[in-house]
Amino acid sequence: MKKLWGGRFKENMDPQFRKFNASLPVDWRLLEADIQVNKAYAQALRKAGILTGHEEKSIQSALDNIREKNSKNPTHILKNIEQGIEDIHTYVETEVIKSAGEAGYKIHTGRSRNEQVSTDLRIYLRQEILSLQKSLKNLCFILIGLAEQNFDVIMPGYTHLQKAQPVLFPHYLMAYFEKFCRDIQRLDEVFTRTNVLPLGSGALTGSHTKIDRNFLCKLLGFAEISSNSMDAVSDRDFILDFTGAGSIILIHLSRLAEDLILYSSSEFGFIELRDNVATGSSLMPHKKNPDALELIRGKTGQAFGHHMGMLALMKGLPLTYNKDLQESQNHLFESADIASTCVSMMATILKNIILHKERIRQSAQSDYIDATEVVDYLIRKGLPFRKAHHIAGKVVLFGIEAGLPLHKIKLKDFHRFSPLFDKDVYDIFSLEKIISAKDIPGGTSPERVKEAIRQSKKKLE
Amino acid sequence: MKKLWGGRFKENMDPQFRKFNASLPVDWRLLEADIQVNKAYAQALRKAGILTGHEEKSIQSALDNIREKNSKNPTHILKNIEQGIEDIHTYVETEVIKSAGEAGYKIHTGRSRNEQVSTDLRIYLRQEILSLQKSLKNLCFILIGLAEQNFDVIMPGYTHLQKAQPVLFPHYLMAYFEKFCRDIQRLDEVFTRTNVLPLGSGALTGSHTKIDRNFLCKLLGFAEISSNSMDAVSDRDFILDFTGAGSIILIHLSRLAEDLILYSSSEFGFIELRDNVATGSSLMPHKKNPDALELIRGKTGQAFGHHMGMLALMKGLPLTYNKDLQESQNHLFESADIASTCVSMMATILKNIILHKERIRQSAQSDYIDATEVVDYLIRKGLPFRKAHHIAGKVVLFGIEAGLPLHKIKLKDFHRFSPLFDKDVYDIFSLEKIISAKDIPGGTSPERVKEAIRQSKKKLE
Amino acid sequence: MKKLWGGRFKENMDPQFRKFNASLPVDWRLLEADIQVNKAYAQALRKAGILTGHEEKSIQSALDNIREKNSKNPTHILKNIEQGIEDIHTYVETEVIKSAGEAGYKIHTGRSRNEQVSTDLRIYLRQEILSLQKSLKNLCFILIGLAEQNFDVIMPGYTHLQKAQPVLFPHYLMAYFEKFCRDIQRLDEVFTRTNVLPLGSGALTGSHTKIDRNFLCKLLGFAEISSNSMDAVSDRDFILDFTGAGSIILIHLSRLAEDLILYSSSEFGFIELRDNVATGSSLMPHKKNPDALELIRGKTGQAFGHHMGMLALMKGLPLTYNKDLQESQNHLFESADIASTCVSMMATILKNIILHKERIRQSAQSDYIDATEVVDYLIRKGLPFRKAHHIAGKVVLFGIEAGLPLHKIKLKDFHRFSPLFDKDVYDIFSLEKIISAKDIPGGTSPERVKEAIRQSKKKLE
Amino acid sequence: MKKLWGGRFKENMDPQFRKFNASLPVDWRLLEADIQVNKAYAQALRKAGILTGHEEKSIQSALDNIREKNSKNPTHILKNIEQGIEDIHTYVETEVIKSAGEAGYKIHTGRSRNEQVSTDLRIYLRQEILSLQKSLKNLCFILIGLAEQNFDVIMPGYTHLQKAQPVLFPHYLMAYFEKFCRDIQRLDEVFTRTNVLPLGSGALTGSHTKIDRNFLCKLLGFAEISSNSMDAVSDRDFILDFTGAGSIILIHLSRLAEDLILYSSSEFGFIELRDNVATGSSLMPHKKNPDALELIRGKTGQAFGHHMGMLALMKGLPLTYNKDLQESQNHLFESADIASTCVSMMATILKNIILHKERIRQSAQSDYIDATEVVDYLIRKGLPFRKAHHIAGKVVLFGIEAGLPLHKIKLKDFHRFSPLFDKDVYDIFSLEKIISAKDIPGGTSPERVKEAIRQSKKKLE
Repeated sequence: MKKLWGGRFKENMDPQFRKFNASLPVDWRLLEADIQVNKAYAQALRKAGILTGHEEKSIQSALDNIREKNSKNPTHILKNIEQGIEDIHTYVETEVIKSAGEAGYKIHTGRSRNEQVSTDLRIYLRQEILSLQKSLKNLCFILIGLAEQNFDVIMPGYTHLQKAQPVLFPHYLMAYFEKFCRDIQRLDEVFTRTNVLPLGSGALTGSHTKIDRNFLCKLLGFAEISSNSMDAVSDRDFILDFTGAGSIILIHLSRLAEDLILYSSSEFGFIELRDNVATGSSLMPHKKNPDALELIRGKTGQAFGHHMGMLALMKGLPLTYNKDLQESQNHLFESADIASTCVSMMATILKNIILHKERIRQSAQSDYIDATEVVDYLIRKGLPFRKAHHIAGKVVLFGIEAGLPLHKIKLKDFHRFSPLFDKDVYDIFSLEKIISAKDIPGGTSPERVKEAIRQSKKKLE
Repeated sequence: MKKLWGGRFKENMDPQFRKFNASLPVDWRLLEADIQVNKAYAQALRKAGILTGHEEKSIQSALDNIREKNSKNPTHILKNIEQGIEDIHTYVETEVIKSAGEAGYKIHTGRSRNEQVSTDLRIYLRQEILSLQKSLKNLCFILIGLAEQNFDVIMPGYTHLQKAQPVLFPHYLMAYFEKFCRDIQRLDEVFTRTNVLPLGSGALTGSHTKIDRNFLCKLLGFAEISSNSMDAVSDRDFILDFTGAGSIILIHLSRLAEDLILYSSSEFGFIELRDNVATGSSLMPHKKNPDALELIRGKTGQAFGHHMGMLALMKGLPLTYNKDLQESQNHLFESADIASTCVSMMATILKNIILHKERIRQSAQSDYIDATEVVDYLIRKGLPFRKAHHIAGKVVLFGIEAGLPLHKIKLKDFHRFSPLFDKDVYDIFSLEKIISAKDIPGGTSPERVKEAIRQSKKKLE
Repeated sequence: MKKLWGGRFKENMDPQFRKFNASLPVDWRLLEADIQVNKAYAQALRKAGILTGHEEKSIQSALDNIREKNSKNPTHILKNIEQGIEDIHTYVETEVIKSAGEAGYKIHTGRSRNEQVSTDLRIYLRQEILSLQKSLKNLCFILIGLAEQNFDVIMPGYTHLQKAQPVLFPHYLMAYFEKFCRDIQRLDEVFTRTNVLPLGSGALTGSHTKIDRNFLCKLLGFAEISSNSMDAVSDRDFILDFTGAGSIILIHLSRLAEDLILYSSSEFGFIELRDNVATGSSLMPHKKNPDALELIRGKTGQAFGHHMGMLALMKGLPLTYNKDLQESQNHLFESADIASTCVSMMATILKNIILHKERIRQSAQSDYIDATEVVDYLIRKGLPFRKAHHIAGKVVLFGIEAGLPLHKIKLKDFHRFSPLFDKDVYDIFSLEKIISAKDIPGGTSPERVKEAIRQSKKKLE
Repeated sequence: MKKLWGGRFKENMDPQFRKFNASLPVDWRLLEADIQVNKAYAQALRKAGILTGHEEKSIQSALDNIREKNSKNPTHILKNIEQGIEDIHTYVETEVIKSAGEAGYKIHTGRSRNEQVSTDLRIYLRQEILSLQKSLKNLCFILIGLAEQNFDVIMPGYTHLQKAQPVLFPHYLMAYFEKFCRDIQRLDEVFTRTNVLPLGSGALTGSHTKIDRNFLCKLLGFAEISSNSMDAVSDRDFILDFTGAGSIILIHLSRLAEDLILYSSSEFGFIELRDNVATGSSLMPHKKNPDALELIRGKTGQAFGHHMGMLALMKGLPLTYNKDLQESQNHLFESADIASTCVSMMATILKNIILHKERIRQSAQSDYIDATEVVDYLIRKGLPFRKAHHIAGKVVLFGIEAGLPLHKIKLKDFHRFSPLFDKDVYDIFSLEKIISAKDIPGGTSPERVKEAIRQSKKKLE
């Protein structure tokens, strides 16, 4: 037996169609999940009186053998396509029949591949989510570590890629911590929606075999069973949720990648990648390129593509199962791989960057980045904000035209713009003072950042 | 004063650039949110000692006036573009200054538009989410009502758009209930991520003014304050989450639309739209077209487009705020409008469909839709599933070639395929029996569906 | 030598990074193109005096050996990743050095991988385009053949999935002919933009070695050389054009698939797939599912995804080459595979459909599909169109309520709506007459369709 | 009369549905095109003997009046929605009937909105394409002008955002010229596919009225008539082609925007935006932000979104017309607006940038950007390329560790790496020499660039 159907058919499959239709090249990844599902289902069938104890045992050991046999090189399964095995479920059922005989013919009793593939995918995805969350947590710990090791580094903060105000480097890093934390939380939600058991839904109506769905639920570690069989076999929300979450993870990674690419340009010169995570050029001998960061940024397109593919795939499909859903597997597997390799690559990169602290500090005190302090100064002297802002703007313009940084402008020149300026104006330009003044929850003052790091560690544990 | 900046500039804006840059044509929608933010911020400034009680009062009444003035026709605000007002924040601040005088110059103290716009957007989106959830709940109630009114209608269930097995029409409807329920849940999660207050983050470093962020949080009804100022002003995850959730809502609607378009074709003939939700043709006088359903399906593309636009927009942006983020507003507003009008249009359509019950029932008992019962019959007679399946397939093939439905095949002809067939085989083809046999949680038996409806009502309340 | 760079580096690559960075798993497909490029480049280097005749010969035979060695199983190349070979260019250069010795060290003179990979991709894509166009032409011939074999079949034409007016089945088929013809034309345009040689652009500035670009152009069969080196190495328009064209091909295929899925449902019953291109169900023995068509429709999502991925990838990349571009290869290869397998699968399906002509004809004359003829009749009797349309609508309504098709309505009942009706009204409902009346270029009258088929054949040749 | 249909209907439209269904808020933009189509159609109807000369005249003057009436403020048309006018075609026909009386009732004879809307859209799009091409040409001229004005400026060229090799600034600009040229060419192709007349296709079968399609074709300035009526009313390839071309234009603009954002950062400092195309910050008085460039980059997401929306919209639609196609209008109009405003904004920006030439030159000679010359030097001295590359890498590493630029390394230190170095090595580091050496078609040598500019001017004319 090589197909799970065919009694009603008189012709063989066209070879081109057989190849086009075979999903084994993609769904071999579900082998372990499919074995788990079959093992649980065999128990349920025994409980329902469909299988004898002896029959179940022979099925269980057949399943153990399949697992054993493919543990080393699961892609060997692909050879079965040539023999007409179309998918992983057919492979497993065929192997069970081969080794368990008559009992094997019963394993699919009251069951449909429609519910089975959804169950397999959910088991697979649960595992991927947990492992991706672990990777994200690791990345978060690395950010925290980097923040602690370089706690006193002050860098320029940017808006519009123009220098805006100085910030603590750890504060900058913790901004990404927040982003990745949201990713972990979002994955929790995807997990909840994934962790619902469709098994027992039959092809679309609910199984006519009285298997105990709650028993299956417990065996397979799901949190609950699905409530409607037609929804269960037609639904791929859990994959849409995942490819969506994966796209957002890649957005966060791509932004960090962009920052690091900029910071490692010779113009910024804030960081350097260690040789072990950089590449050279086949033509230009001096080049040291941030390929890893660029690849992460580039793979963002792929993450979006798979998400978009899923959306387009699902649009306007009539209920219930349609074969189009087969294509969701590719989107899921690729999305999971991209997210997982990029998160872990980024972690490795962060462990291998060298900070050029002097250059960073120097940059944090040039280009009128301290102009906002002048506004604040004038407010303290009694001017309303909007007017103070206007005057400070005029002072900056004067500085630019005179070629002077703010702290080099003479008091008499300050007085051109407001009589409120006094000698104490020269006190406001210290980097440490500027940073410390942002003493508000979520702000960049050292105390606040220290507290934020403390809270973050707690959150991760 | 028409701009919130400019002291450092010597030239006027190029007119083309002024038009290109003006966001008022989009962000006028944030007027109410911006007023709320300003009202709370004025209180916080007074608490921080920046504003006197008197000053705050005059700002509050200025804000009340702005609200009052624009309550009828907020799009009148757009006329201000010609006077050089670039965005809604500038409009509000300018108006405040006009009416509150000197105090008005203080309203922006220690604040940046970067944090303000994010706060406004979150307030706006909270409202949209709540209203969309209400619409979705309404749609769910209509599905339940339709299910209850037509509880006994049996229809053909489809896989691959081929008749698969009969199901209860209410079971079919409740499949969509499940989908929309997940949408409501997903929006809860988006709400949680939206309901975080960025105000106090300043331009990117945290405000240097010691305003009480937790006080603002309470005043504006947020659940918590953001933890990192650089994250706060650079983050648009909440919009990505929403456009993603909106895309999935539209997928669900598009699938229901597709079903109803099919069911109202003359070939299916299951339902008819009432005249009040159908249209005709300018050329062909007999046409009655399901335009509303097609438009919902078509708008799914727009929902995807705005989601994809958001993803592409965010990719690779360096920290922190970049003006690109301005474009996220359009994606948000359009997404919210599409989801909300389509959900509520679908509700109205469902209230205006006529079931052709006789035709539906007839369809539910033709085209060998009862073949799976033969498999079950043979299993009960002792055959293992996979063999029973094969024999039933052969029986179907015989029926097709002889032009006979299964219940018209003679017993002796059944015997060609298996000696296990007996007279009682003719008992298995009753629609009611077939339905009742799916007596498993989530299955289509009347008892199970009744229970599902009961649970669903509970869930909604 | 395993890398084409490294003199400036002191550390080895991190193993995770090496794996992440290796493009060999994707770009091994460029082997043949890379060999061609190297062969041509060796000739150019000899012409430029960089290689002696002897040196060139040894390089040419080294390249022949590489081709020979990998002709059977090119994926064997992948084993080289473990030895640190990062991409196909490195593989080829390394092998050339191995076998040609000192001469091999010269093959990359004045050349950069930036220009080389773009050249390879263009050579690869040219081949893919030509082969895809051939497939599309084959599909067009099959449509024409089907049209000719079933020239007299009249079917209902649809708008809004409601029966609109009868059409010739061949006219319906030729609508798709037009769509696929546009695809062939669009691919011509992509070909033109692809067929431009970047070689000689160096890393970004133009080569400092005076190789003869026009000589290379001729050797490699390109139509012209690129005009600006910085554009040449930064440009991937040709891939964007191709993934865009591929997406539109899939849209056309998905529409045809949708039609055929509908037409093969038991409700429509117009066509049946032969057993050799249909599948069954693992649970329901009667099912015959149009999996192939659904998969084509589903793969449309993947085509879109790769196009979207390309767009997102390119957005906002600074000049010139960035490693992000590496990811464009995957999008290109996958797009090409999807388009090519789906076009050819569709061709096979069309060769294996069975028409149920009686059922189609019956459908073409029911459900008031002939109502527009009444409008035309009244116009001929002197009524202006818009009024005729209104009266015909009233007649249809009368028919629906009386349960009568138009030709069964009595003349006295016609008179309720207009005195212009006469006995000759009963002549207008013949299917053949209705069809013949659309005697306008592009219309469905047999003469016009015959002419269209004649023109189409000419066009294809 | 407010609807073009209704005879067959007994109920009024539900108000919510009427609003949802009304396309006037979008398709009012087609007014001028619809008038043109009606004017031509009236002539064709007269030629076909449907209209008398007198009737046609009264229709023509009715159409003139409509055009006249709405010439000032076409959005006034929107008020008609409240009176039940659903789309622009209904508006025009209703107005014609109002003013031309009985003759007006004939204007839609043998015509369908399905063909009419496609014709209108094609006329609209032709205009948009021509105007966009004009804008692109203007942008190209500006690039050329900028190149000529700054012909001698040498800047660093980048790969991977790392300094690669020096290039002429005009060479850099001309890279974008090439990209925009391809855009113009691509729009030519879209134009060709757009410029095909569907009128005469009827609802889907071809008109039963013998109007002269070739006469209409000439009147409306189309290049040819469509070949198949079912294709004609179901096809939106021309919009897909346009949204695709628009997305690529935005990619090119976003890359230029990214470059200019980088170059105007204080770290690069190559350019400065004039005050008239920059903005300030509401909080930070020193800021001068490149908002216009960021908005262009951000709008790229919208361009992609509309393209993706179109793709998703079209997927799997059965033939022929479905109301989903209505939504294509919004995608088209928005795409056209985005492309056109962004191209022309970019032109204005380029006219308002200030080059910091000294800083650019300085940057072009630092950071080992001249290392590739060492490779070339060693090749000239007889070393094969790959070995020369390795040695040059070692020299760079020495320079980095010693803190010396290449031209400051002593000869004896050069000798550590190869005895081939001689005193003449110090001659290779002149910027002008380096540039001049790239004397190959498409290269950056002044002669080649001059020639390229000359060719480009020719191409544009």
